[in-house]
Amino acid sequence: MKIPMDEFGLIDHAFRKRAPFVHPLTRLPNGDDASTHAVPKGQEVVVSTDISMAEKHWPRDFPLKDAACRAVNAAASDLAAMGASPAWLWLGVMATSSDDADRMGRGVTRALESLSMELAGGDTVRSPVNALSVTVAGLLPEGSAMRRDTACAGQDVWLCGEAGLAAHGLQQWQQGKRDGSHVPYFRVVRPLLSEGTRLRELGVTCCIDVSDGLFADSGHVADASSVAFYLCMEKVGSFPSLIREMNEQEALRLVLGGGEDYSLLFTASVKRRKSLQTFACRIGECREGSGVHVTLDGRKMHVPPMGYNHFA
Amino acid sequence: MKIPMDEFGLIDHAFRKRAPFVHPLTRLPNGDDASTHAVPKGQEVVVSTDISMAEKHWPRDFPLKDAACRAVNAAASDLAAMGASPAWLWLGVMATSSDDADRMGRGVTRALESLSMELAGGDTVRSPVNALSVTVAGLLPEGSAMRRDTACAGQDVWLCGEAGLAAHGLQQWQQGKRDGSHVPYFRVVRPLLSEGTRLRELGVTCCIDVSDGLFADSGHVADASSVAFYLCMEKVGSFPSLIREMNEQEALRLVLGGGEDYSLLFTASVKRRKSLQTFACRIGECREGSGVHVTLDGRKMHVPPMGYNHFA
Repeated sequence: MKIPMDEFGLIDHAFRKRAPFVHPLTRLPNGDDASTHAVPKGQEVVVSTDISMAEKHWPRDFPLKDAACRAVNAAASDLAAMGASPAWLWLGVMATSSDDADRMGRGVTRALESLSMELAGGDTVRSPVNALSVTVAGLLPEGSAMRRDTACAGQDVWLCGEAGLAAHGLQQWQQGKRDGSHVPYFRVVRPLLSEGTRLRELGVTCCIDVSDGLFADSGHVADASSVAFYLCMEKVGSFPSLIREMNEQEALRLVLGGGEDYSLLFTASVKRRKSLQTFACRIGECREGSGVHVTLDGRKMHVPPMGYNHFA
Repeated sequence: MKIPMDEFGLIDHAFRKRAPFVHPLTRLPNGDDASTHAVPKGQEVVVSTDISMAEKHWPRDFPLKDAACRAVNAAASDLAAMGASPAWLWLGVMATSSDDADRMGRGVTRALESLSMELAGGDTVRSPVNALSVTVAGLLPEGSAMRRDTACAGQDVWLCGEAGLAAHGLQQWQQGKRDGSHVPYFRVVRPLLSEGTRLRELGVTCCIDVSDGLFADSGHVADASSVAFYLCMEKVGSFPSLIREMNEQEALRLVLGGGEDYSLLFTASVKRRKSLQTFACRIGECREGSGVHVTLDGRKMHVPPMGYNHFA
């Protein structure tokens, strides 16, 4: 089918017609100057925004449809980290051509469908680089948001999801191993929304999604909460599996520095262990102090500088 | 002062520290995975998103601080068109360097201050092109949003603000006339927020902000409402003033096709004339039928194809 070349036709074709879902709380959907939405009494609206850009957030030869699907799911992961239910999405599409806009439209609408989210608005512009800005909103009971600044000394540190496997998959992709063991972990992001809601309902108050890497995101929580994080590498499920394929330092770098898994890192009182151990992995503890401290079988590990700095 | 080069330091320096305002309904501000906000009973949340990109939305040699300020004010204009009170903003910053991010930060925070809006979240990425994605949210009483699909045959068509002067100012800028008579109309966008609220309170139900040009935006309302728009050029305040500087066709093109004024185009029953004429200009009427029809002193005008098509 021919892709419409005018801006409004393109938006209709690539996005609106493919994303017909309207959330029951929407009062005025996509198509006006703005969308309007009711928020039930006792609920708060939760909002986050992310940019995903070619060659920064996905490799040049990565399928654009998958990249766009990934961008939406990654943005929704921030709602998972708060314990929110996803509802609406506003999209900024920067595309080098109408064909690329169409490809991104396919990925965005695939993700919207799997998340049951509404495309509530958007803007499209031709750009020298393919990129998406994704703003997501969800709902949650007043005052119940899981946050970064409520970890306490004496609590356990837990991880729900993987650490480092997506980064390893990206590395495999970049080495030309398109069927690499961990490529699917990079290719497909599944935001842990039901897990986030379950954690919030279980009384967890401190949670972050691992997007900058386990070490950096542990640091964000430790700093915000004024505690120290002690992480035991042997307890992180992916570490023993990675170490079979590479040396210790390399596995450490992927598990601590790989920022693409969108797992949930949280803390909880030791009393919660029984209810949490069915779907998360206890990987350490919070103590008085500051910073992130890493051990492997009791050995203190030296952690090299890591993480991606866009403006370095 | 030295601009921090790491991403988190840059965000703090260029944006957060300069935009300390927190809206009273915010429950969790900027700095966590997402922000959370209460919405009072009887109110709706109103959201819109816009992209502004160098060389698409502002000329290459336009000051980046002014461009960023303009981008925020232009996004807020969508809230004005709904009759909403502005509250929160989420920002995607795509910058070619940390210096440019800093310049955009100055413009964004200047606009936020003048709008009393909170910077509730954001994301920053280094990019081959300077651009901003701006998502704005406001509040308004349930069911009171002004929209595009409620114009009726027999109503007057009104314009609050200018038409074509910003486009002329941009033209002057591009011709090197930095002190051109209308350059300030392009340089500074003032979203008509108090006017939008006033219109809503006066019972206006149909309104759009003129961002694609008077002709195209009239067409959007006419299509959505299934009516015809009849516009009288001699009643549009800027037309007589432009025609003193250029020929009729050129003035027509600017007034009908210039999309940078962010004025409010709305319709209202003839009974409202007295209350509206103090701050808006009656420029035509709605009739049964379809399309946009333009006259000048009773003469039917031929309207050439206009408007900017990003993917043409």
